[in-house]
Amino acid sequence: MSHRKNRRRRRHRRPDLAAAPAGASPPAAAPIDSATLRLLGCDGSSCAESIVLRPEELTVAREQWPVVWIDVEGIDDTATTALIGSVFEIGELALEDAVTPDERPKVEVFGHQVLIAARTVRYDSEGIVTDPVCIFLGDRYVITFRERQARDPFELVRQRIRHGRTRIGHEGADALAALLLDVLIDGYFPVLEQFGDRLEALEDEALNKPSRQSLVGIHDVRNDLMTLRRALWPTRDLLHALGREPTPLVGEHARAHFRDSYDHTMELLDLMESYREIGSDLRDIYLASLNNRMNDVMKVLTVIATIFMPLTFITGYYGMNFNTESPWNMPLLNFRYGGPAAIGIMAATTIGMVAFFWRRGWLKRWH
Amino acid sequence: MSHRKNRRRRRHRRPDLAAAPAGASPPAAAPIDSATLRLLGCDGSSCAESIVLRPEELTVAREQWPVVWIDVEGIDDTATTALIGSVFEIGELALEDAVTPDERPKVEVFGHQVLIAARTVRYDSEGIVTDPVCIFLGDRYVITFRERQARDPFELVRQRIRHGRTRIGHEGADALAALLLDVLIDGYFPVLEQFGDRLEALEDEALNKPSRQSLVGIHDVRNDLMTLRRALWPTRDLLHALGREPTPLVGEHARAHFRDSYDHTMELLDLMESYREIGSDLRDIYLASLNNRMNDVMKVLTVIATIFMPLTFITGYYGMNFNTESPWNMPLLNFRYGGPAAIGIMAATTIGMVAFFWRRGWLKRWH
Amino acid sequence: MSHRKNRRRRRHRRPDLAAAPAGASPPAAAPIDSATLRLLGCDGSSCAESIVLRPEELTVAREQWPVVWIDVEGIDDTATTALIGSVFEIGELALEDAVTPDERPKVEVFGHQVLIAARTVRYDSEGIVTDPVCIFLGDRYVITFRERQARDPFELVRQRIRHGRTRIGHEGADALAALLLDVLIDGYFPVLEQFGDRLEALEDEALNKPSRQSLVGIHDVRNDLMTLRRALWPTRDLLHALGREPTPLVGEHARAHFRDSYDHTMELLDLMESYREIGSDLRDIYLASLNNRMNDVMKVLTVIATIFMPLTFITGYYGMNFNTESPWNMPLLNFRYGGPAAIGIMAATTIGMVAFFWRRGWLKRWH
Amino acid sequence: MSHRKNRRRRRHRRPDLAAAPAGASPPAAAPIDSATLRLLGCDGSSCAESIVLRPEELTVAREQWPVVWIDVEGIDDTATTALIGSVFEIGELALEDAVTPDERPKVEVFGHQVLIAARTVRYDSEGIVTDPVCIFLGDRYVITFRERQARDPFELVRQRIRHGRTRIGHEGADALAALLLDVLIDGYFPVLEQFGDRLEALEDEALNKPSRQSLVGIHDVRNDLMTLRRALWPTRDLLHALGREPTPLVGEHARAHFRDSYDHTMELLDLMESYREIGSDLRDIYLASLNNRMNDVMKVLTVIATIFMPLTFITGYYGMNFNTESPWNMPLLNFRYGGPAAIGIMAATTIGMVAFFWRRGWLKRWH
Amino acid sequence: MSHRKNRRRRRHRRPDLAAAPAGASPPAAAPIDSATLRLLGCDGSSCAESIVLRPEELTVAREQWPVVWIDVEGIDDTATTALIGSVFEIGELALEDAVTPDERPKVEVFGHQVLIAARTVRYDSEGIVTDPVCIFLGDRYVITFRERQARDPFELVRQRIRHGRTRIGHEGADALAALLLDVLIDGYFPVLEQFGDRLEALEDEALNKPSRQSLVGIHDVRNDLMTLRRALWPTRDLLHALGREPTPLVGEHARAHFRDSYDHTMELLDLMESYREIGSDLRDIYLASLNNRMNDVMKVLTVIATIFMPLTFITGYYGMNFNTESPWNMPLLNFRYGGPAAIGIMAATTIGMVAFFWRRGWLKRWH
Repeated sequence: MSHRKNRRRRRHRRPDLAAAPAGASPPAAAPIDSATLRLLGCDGSSCAESIVLRPEELTVAREQWPVVWIDVEGIDDTATTALIGSVFEIGELALEDAVTPDERPKVEVFGHQVLIAARTVRYDSEGIVTDPVCIFLGDRYVITFRERQARDPFELVRQRIRHGRTRIGHEGADALAALLLDVLIDGYFPVLEQFGDRLEALEDEALNKPSRQSLVGIHDVRNDLMTLRRALWPTRDLLHALGREPTPLVGEHARAHFRDSYDHTMELLDLMESYREIGSDLRDIYLASLNNRMNDVMKVLTVIATIFMPLTFITGYYGMNFNTESPWNMPLLNFRYGGPAAIGIMAATTIGMVAFFWRRGWLKRWH
Repeated sequence: MSHRKNRRRRRHRRPDLAAAPAGASPPAAAPIDSATLRLLGCDGSSCAESIVLRPEELTVAREQWPVVWIDVEGIDDTATTALIGSVFEIGELALEDAVTPDERPKVEVFGHQVLIAARTVRYDSEGIVTDPVCIFLGDRYVITFRERQARDPFELVRQRIRHGRTRIGHEGADALAALLLDVLIDGYFPVLEQFGDRLEALEDEALNKPSRQSLVGIHDVRNDLMTLRRALWPTRDLLHALGREPTPLVGEHARAHFRDSYDHTMELLDLMESYREIGSDLRDIYLASLNNRMNDVMKVLTVIATIFMPLTFITGYYGMNFNTESPWNMPLLNFRYGGPAAIGIMAATTIGMVAFFWRRGWLKRWH
Repeated sequence: MSHRKNRRRRRHRRPDLAAAPAGASPPAAAPIDSATLRLLGCDGSSCAESIVLRPEELTVAREQWPVVWIDVEGIDDTATTALIGSVFEIGELALEDAVTPDERPKVEVFGHQVLIAARTVRYDSEGIVTDPVCIFLGDRYVITFRERQARDPFELVRQRIRHGRTRIGHEGADALAALLLDVLIDGYFPVLEQFGDRLEALEDEALNKPSRQSLVGIHDVRNDLMTLRRALWPTRDLLHALGREPTPLVGEHARAHFRDSYDHTMELLDLMESYREIGSDLRDIYLASLNNRMNDVMKVLTVIATIFMPLTFITGYYGMNFNTESPWNMPLLNFRYGGPAAIGIMAATTIGMVAFFWRRGWLKRWH
Repeated sequence: MSHRKNRRRRRHRRPDLAAAPAGASPPAAAPIDSATLRLLGCDGSSCAESIVLRPEELTVAREQWPVVWIDVEGIDDTATTALIGSVFEIGELALEDAVTPDERPKVEVFGHQVLIAARTVRYDSEGIVTDPVCIFLGDRYVITFRERQARDPFELVRQRIRHGRTRIGHEGADALAALLLDVLIDGYFPVLEQFGDRLEALEDEALNKPSRQSLVGIHDVRNDLMTLRRALWPTRDLLHALGREPTPLVGEHARAHFRDSYDHTMELLDLMESYREIGSDLRDIYLASLNNRMNDVMKVLTVIATIFMPLTFITGYYGMNFNTESPWNMPLLNFRYGGPAAIGIMAATTIGMVAFFWRRGWLKRWH
Repeated sequence: MSHRKNRRRRRHRRPDLAAAPAGASPPAAAPIDSATLRLLGCDGSSCAESIVLRPEELTVAREQWPVVWIDVEGIDDTATTALIGSVFEIGELALEDAVTPDERPKVEVFGHQVLIAARTVRYDSEGIVTDPVCIFLGDRYVITFRERQARDPFELVRQRIRHGRTRIGHEGADALAALLLDVLIDGYFPVLEQFGDRLEALEDEALNKPSRQSLVGIHDVRNDLMTLRRALWPTRDLLHALGREPTPLVGEHARAHFRDSYDHTMELLDLMESYREIGSDLRDIYLASLNNRMNDVMKVLTVIATIFMPLTFITGYYGMNFNTESPWNMPLLNFRYGGPAAIGIMAATTIGMVAFFWRRGWLKRWH
């Protein structure tokens, strides 16, 4: 039951960043411990990738490269987060948003930076799960914060840069941010496509052999769609804001890219709404199937009762103990062919009843 | 089950145009291969139609005619698409949108061009299908991209031009774009009209002989309406934008035409909403019919049981083996007219029961 | 089934006005044939009514009177429509809108004219029908186009003018247009009032004797309300636009009148929404009634079975053929008062069962 | 059934004020007949109340007092209405709105006057009824029009003024209008509070003894809520307009008061929405209760049938007439303890069946 | 049933503050009686907490500290409220809002003060309850009004200030107000998290043993969600206004904090909507479970009847009293192995019936 997981994931929110020595001197010497920092620096002609191990490398990279992308994997490492915050002058509220696991997708402008909180999606044993990804866009750098994940959602972007198909040193940090967000949104398509299969299987089940399992399955599909909707609706809003409202940090080219991602989100939402309605329809089909089954059961009972009750009455009739010395009392009993005659009466009754049900169509199965 | 097809059509999206040598020299000599390019050039007095076979013809046509319409059938021919892109200076993002099979209807302004993504509609063996059609509007040209289709949706426009009823050389490229879109929208009317027949047939079925097939039919109608809605709602938005917001490329006359198409889309949407509600009502009618059927079955069972149970009891009574030597034990058994008397009692009971049910109205059929 | 008619009325839309010799010389000499043109010209002091028979009269009237109202009955007479179009300089698109039978209510400004497309309502053998009425408002004239109808919706306006209660020569063409629209809206009230009666009758039926007919009746009410809604919602929008947005052709006094009509439309819509909800409630009541009926049937069956099954068992018991020579086998059978004793046992069982059902309240009828 | 009354109240709308000699000389000498006019004039220090009997008093009062409030009870007295219209220079359309019984709440500015149409609420034998109250606000006067009512809704305001708690001579006419509207809105609270009791009683009924009466009760609650909603939604809109949009006649202090009333209306609407949803839930509870009842009935039938059918079979078995001279035919019949043995078999069967049902929980009642 | 409490809490609203001597001299000497006033004054370096016992302390504190926070616990103490109103120059309408128990969350600007009406949430024996909390924000002071409560919602804020983590003397009164509101919103998370558990337990119940209790439970969850929604929706609106609209009293830093609280409210609302839908789904699951139960019952009845009716017929057949002297009448009765033969026929019938039901799957239990 997928809402179990929703509830659990809500448990502890808002890491207490202020517990770290805020206002103290920059923790330049703190070792980068549990988080993995992937650095990608580009200038007009080439790009270099590395794993950041010592804090100083960040400051150096920021100065050295025209466009820098730092990808932080592991948002629970508060020390590293604070370090990046001090190097790139990120405010406390913004940093807190970046590392909150249940952050709702949004975009917020903090002076010289744009914070884009988004969510990736994946299938998990219990259903659909969405994980937070936070993108900080500065004038010459992009910083992404995300949880440790089995699959790196940004590997595609890295490959694109390696193969020279996207020249972020040339196009700027805003183009990189738009590309990252685009890749995140595209990750929703394969997940949503699986719903088609699930719904189709459930439809067959609901029509042909409605069981309690089908009902649970329909319920789970609806829960998963709710999880998706909670992630996609605010994403739509943030893409609308990014694509339409002019901000100094986001150029026209990146805005066109955001508008394109917005269109993809709208497609996803359209499709999702359709799946939601199909889910509702399935419930109705399931209930109608149950109803039909009940009808089937009742018909069997009625057919059996209607055939055997008259027969039993006839046998009862000839089982009465009237004194057959009187010729008026049960004359058939002493008749030489009384037994066969009774059988004949019973057969006629049975044939009549069966014909009646045949004409009513009750002897055919429902489907 | 029409959502099966929806799912499948979502499979592979976004052709990788960048795989073509972007930024390379214009592929002027590439042969036009799998796509069909219909060229229609007009000046103030006359129009000429031709099939473009060699790339150079495009450049020539663009220069020669005051208004040019290129109709590209076959959006999977990436080489041709890239060629047109380079001749008419279409950006990469715009070109990608033009040839994406699942593009959502939208309008977007790219500098000196307006991209209008729309969808045509047709009935297919599995239900309603919508196909993408993309209209590029430049200052002096219109380019349409569409999939290979059994029926050319623009044949009507061509005829109109041939017969001189629309003088696009005189009215301009924007008027041509408005006319093309108008013809696409008009294509929805005959499709929507068929829903009336389908719903009527389903209503008769649901009322008179509700079967599992009716439920599947109602479900299919609802799925088809969802497919239509996914195409029509964004079309409404794009027509609103084209009709109300002034852009340099779209003149007042074309805007009036777009507003007119907008009104037709609203009519379509109103009608569609009505059909959706009728679809919901049908489901309720279907369920009520099932319920009534069950009632019918129960009544038969009850009538039979209520008539025969007392009768069987009476026969059982006279079948008891009490010693009839005692005058207190079952005196009727030895009575000369005991048998007829018992039959009389049974007949009276039966008549009473039948009268009871007659007065309750259970012996009439339901409808 | 009222959606049958909706479907049919959609069949052929958009008369091909361009088939008439557009751009040709004004068809001044064409006879006015199938349409009826009622002319009403007013100056400050008096008004004159006439039926236009010859085309020239239109040109004369337009010049002669400060305010002219031409009421065209019969929109299928394309020649007359084209004639009026040329006399009053109405554009082709506007004229096409005026004579389209399924035009959605809307207001559109065409240069020096305002086109108001509205719909009248009437009851027909199959349910509610709405007919298009189109009002052209110029600076000094009003032209109304409508289908031939059994009842002239504008007769009230004519009477008002004849009795001098509205001085359109003094108040202007915009006041006349506002009055015409007001009269159209007022025509919806009596139609909507009939729904109250229909719903009340259906409620009684659904509660007391739910039949298949009630379900069809509820369905028809809902279809009729959908037809009304399709006419009233866009009417509301057009009245909002006319009452709030300043246009040179509509003065402040007429705008106040339009706002008043807007309020009446809102009342109609409020009432309609209530009726829609009552319609939904009725369906639930109907289903609950069916359910209750089934309950009733089941109770009868259960009461009968529960009373007679034990009785039949007792008779069966005393019908067993055990050898009664053994004193342990069925001693009552040879007892002198065995028969009456068995009757006593049966009576006691019956009384017990009846008491049980009495206390459960099953012997009362449901309502 | 409360929609019965809705329908009836709609019957005749819009009194024909123009039937009175409009444009004629002010009917200064017409006697004030069927309506009651309460005049309240205030200056900075004191207030005076009186009943207006002669028309001249109105003109005098208007000149004499800085702030005048005329409360007209009885809107069907068209002569008096016309008189007030001429004394206070109220336009025809505005006056018509004031005396229309079914006027929808709205606010409209007529030059130097603000017309506020609102509705009071009361319980009546058939359910909730709302009556129109119209407030005209001029620069130095307030005129209220209302139907004759059992309870004067403005008595509270009069008392407040008498006790000097509101100094309208000091605060101005707009403050008086705000106070009057506030009192009207407050009148909705006690009415809405009764819904809580009604819904609670219905919930107990629906859960414990669902009858047809409960269904009618739920339906009536929903109808009453619809009546309330039709009055409250437009009231919300008018208060929003009065509280937010600056008009010369309404000062900042009165606007704050209107905003306060707006908040109260929002509270009422929130509560009303909750009641509507509880009403929907009740219907579901009612249907589930019916379903459970049916289940109960079926269980009784099944238990009885399942216990007695095997018993009857056993008695039937020993009632067969096989020739017991063969030792293979029914040997128990001639056995000395055959009877008790058969009873033992029957008892064992019965105990087994009862145990089976006991374990299934069918012998417990449902709740 | 939680709406019982809603109703009761609505009973008496709007304390009559004007009953206190308004306009009289400030009640400086009135003792602070039933309310508890916690004062917290801060300057740039330190803060001091105290309980206000005498009225004069308020005036002193207001002058002495750069930022003052007065927390008033006990809003029914009208004397104290009036005192604070006079010291901090709060208008009558604003003060009335502050002490109304059923105030809807809202923000209102009264000249030099901002009134923020919010609600805290808690679980109570009858379900969820929300209590009003009113925050007055002046240029250098914050005043909070709340009911006496078991748990002080602001204790967290006090601790934060005591530990120097929030320096309100430095950050200003607006930062304090933002922090207070943030703490109130955070109080909703643990309450909402419990819904997950409740819904999960109800889902298990509805699927496995649907009882009347489950239905009441689902109904209660929905009522609680309605209570929450009534508190959260207007809170969302007020936070939107506070975070987006610039006001002189609220600085950019506080606005960012309000926007953050707004995001949390949106998360709460998203989650709440999901719970509402799960609640609806549960009702459907419950009804389907009931339906399945009924099906189960019917199957048992049908199986029993279908097995025993033929058997009883066979025993009846051999119980008929035909004269067996005729070789045509019931020849088996005198056959030596007639009894075993009859048993064989019965066994065969039974096995056939059981096989029939086995193949239909009726002998398996439903789940």
